[in-house]
Amino acid sequence: MFEKILTTISNQPPLVHSITNYVTVNDCANIVLACGGAPIMADDINEVEEIIAICNALVINIGTLNERTVAAMIKAGKKANSLGRPVILDPVGAGASTLRTNTVFKLLKEVQFSVIRGNVSEIKTIDQGSGTTKGVDADISDAVNEENLDQMVVFAKALSAKTGAVIAITGAIDIVADRHKALVIRNGHPMMSRITGTGCMLTTVIGSYCGANPDELLLATAAAVSCLGLCGERAFAKVQAHEAGTASFRTYLIDAMSRMDSQTLEGGMKVETR
Amino acid sequence: MFEKILTTISNQPPLVHSITNYVTVNDCANIVLACGGAPIMADDINEVEEIIAICNALVINIGTLNERTVAAMIKAGKKANSLGRPVILDPVGAGASTLRTNTVFKLLKEVQFSVIRGNVSEIKTIDQGSGTTKGVDADISDAVNEENLDQMVVFAKALSAKTGAVIAITGAIDIVADRHKALVIRNGHPMMSRITGTGCMLTTVIGSYCGANPDELLLATAAAVSCLGLCGERAFAKVQAHEAGTASFRTYLIDAMSRMDSQTLEGGMKVETR
Amino acid sequence: MFEKILTTISNQPPLVHSITNYVTVNDCANIVLACGGAPIMADDINEVEEIIAICNALVINIGTLNERTVAAMIKAGKKANSLGRPVILDPVGAGASTLRTNTVFKLLKEVQFSVIRGNVSEIKTIDQGSGTTKGVDADISDAVNEENLDQMVVFAKALSAKTGAVIAITGAIDIVADRHKALVIRNGHPMMSRITGTGCMLTTVIGSYCGANPDELLLATAAAVSCLGLCGERAFAKVQAHEAGTASFRTYLIDAMSRMDSQTLEGGMKVETR
Repeated sequence: MFEKILTTISNQPPLVHSITNYVTVNDCANIVLACGGAPIMADDINEVEEIIAICNALVINIGTLNERTVAAMIKAGKKANSLGRPVILDPVGAGASTLRTNTVFKLLKEVQFSVIRGNVSEIKTIDQGSGTTKGVDADISDAVNEENLDQMVVFAKALSAKTGAVIAITGAIDIVADRHKALVIRNGHPMMSRITGTGCMLTTVIGSYCGANPDELLLATAAAVSCLGLCGERAFAKVQAHEAGTASFRTYLIDAMSRMDSQTLEGGMKVETR
Repeated sequence: MFEKILTTISNQPPLVHSITNYVTVNDCANIVLACGGAPIMADDINEVEEIIAICNALVINIGTLNERTVAAMIKAGKKANSLGRPVILDPVGAGASTLRTNTVFKLLKEVQFSVIRGNVSEIKTIDQGSGTTKGVDADISDAVNEENLDQMVVFAKALSAKTGAVIAITGAIDIVADRHKALVIRNGHPMMSRITGTGCMLTTVIGSYCGANPDELLLATAAAVSCLGLCGERAFAKVQAHEAGTASFRTYLIDAMSRMDSQTLEGGMKVETR
Repeated sequence: MFEKILTTISNQPPLVHSITNYVTVNDCANIVLACGGAPIMADDINEVEEIIAICNALVINIGTLNERTVAAMIKAGKKANSLGRPVILDPVGAGASTLRTNTVFKLLKEVQFSVIRGNVSEIKTIDQGSGTTKGVDADISDAVNEENLDQMVVFAKALSAKTGAVIAITGAIDIVADRHKALVIRNGHPMMSRITGTGCMLTTVIGSYCGANPDELLLATAAAVSCLGLCGERAFAKVQAHEAGTASFRTYLIDAMSRMDSQTLEGGMKVETR
């Protein structure tokens, strides 16, 4: 299913430009390398247009946003749009402060995103800022589960239609959707939420996969979600074997990504179409 | 002794807001998660009041201070004070530059700290900026040892009385004191000073423990100091067993925290009341 | 060959001041500690002069440069020059954007560097900004190899003469040169380019070695290049033994540095004089 996505990355390693937070930036750079891409972190407004011009994708992550970097995000995003490069948004903490929420709304207005990845709560905030129709999200709960899955799939597809972006809602069960089709992914392990940066790393892997596969955004995003989830499963198995803890889990997670291949992913992926 | 402190964290995981340096911020976020809390790093002045309002504690660390973040620290600190949230100060490098020393003095003037943690040299600088009485510190040396321990305990208690904060002086021997009582802690291992961030991580663990136990600041701080020290001992044992080095030590340190429980801490703690 | 360089570090641990990027800053701090130095990261313009005054060397890395930090780099660099402290430049991404290239040109004009370390592409950009003679670099290719080695050695010596700095061109084959003499180093492993920060870490190790050996800049730089390369070889052996990946490689790399000694380095170094 994802063979072509991974082959393209091997053959044409994507250069990924990230404007991101300083908490998890090192993990993000390392996982881009581990998954076969090359990272460039650059956030000064005077260089972001030139940097995105030599890159294959742009990742915008508002984890430790400030006035200076938000201006750079918008400038880089517009340039990426004009060049046809995929732009991925990670709306970290959207809804937790007025600044974050307003920044996300501003970004949605100024930049056309290719993919938006967040947890349910962040994606709800995206929904509020991306149009006038607010009906769909009124009832959605705070986590995707087997009971509300159908409803959440409808929500994700509708939000994709509204935003024009592939929507990735991640949690215990992940949903990746465009307006027509949703992929439900059940890879992953709870220990992924006991380290910082799993979400940020996932977003940069999505950036890498989409950078190499700009015409297959839905499939590339789903491949990234499934792949990092599978890495989490494999990392946890190693933690148990070594009676290790959460810091080792982080190391094993990136290790697993650096050793991933198409065959392993096909064997371990848990993906269902809805 | 610390059973209640750790139980509270398990039952009500604290949300910890840090305004901290970009050198060790990832380790700090990961150790908050490892010890049972949840980290939020946010330093823009336009959101810090809202962020601390949804958190249980605020950690201020001046490791890579600049004008922009110092203003955010003061605003967040005042808001935390008004909400009754514990505020923890890590005066990294106080005394090493005029900017750091003056920033610490300003912070002490504007914000009421609940706990201040530093090495002897940093705590001496705190003493100079926290009142007119300078007598006590005139003779203290640069490290706590068995010879000057009694004198240092008197100093720590007096400084706690002056500042209204629990004082944690950390080094080979640690002292945690309020105005009435001091706990002397002999956990830890010298390899803790061969990686960056042990002090910063300790301060965020203190933030987590105090966030969950706002009415037991002395005990919560001592529990954090003893616990991270014990993790250092266990990490060093693993380094020796694997003929590993300092980077593995860092991994094992956080691993140990993620596997810590009340029973292990009670069995390994080396705490004496003075 | 490098015995004296390493002995000096043990006997008088250098304090190393870095103004660097937020992507790899933690690795840089940890490798300074691992190689026997002590790191201080400080980038506020109001304190950099005081900080460099208490340090043995200054490392300037433009990885995530911005207006605020570039001003601090220049101020710190001038002060370091006036105090006779070694100043090391890592021109990350010079040539990739006008901002980076112009910043490097400005730094070269305002600050006298002791050592400049980069890959071929970055060093080419340095050459363009360091004088009117542009003949030498016209023909150099994008990587040092056995075929162009003689030519690259001539280029490196000429650039050292122009800049007054020891030039370290790193890649599969490394060249360290002053105007009179070049050392060609063949330590290292390809996996070093599959993690972020190897170059940045190398530059801070150079800073540590030069800080402890300010009168032996060529030898100290070559020792650092050979030593980190050897650590890479040893880390890769451990990765293979454990069927591990790139994140473990990073850990083992720093581990190896923390366990390095003169004898191991003498036994493993691959250094040739040209």
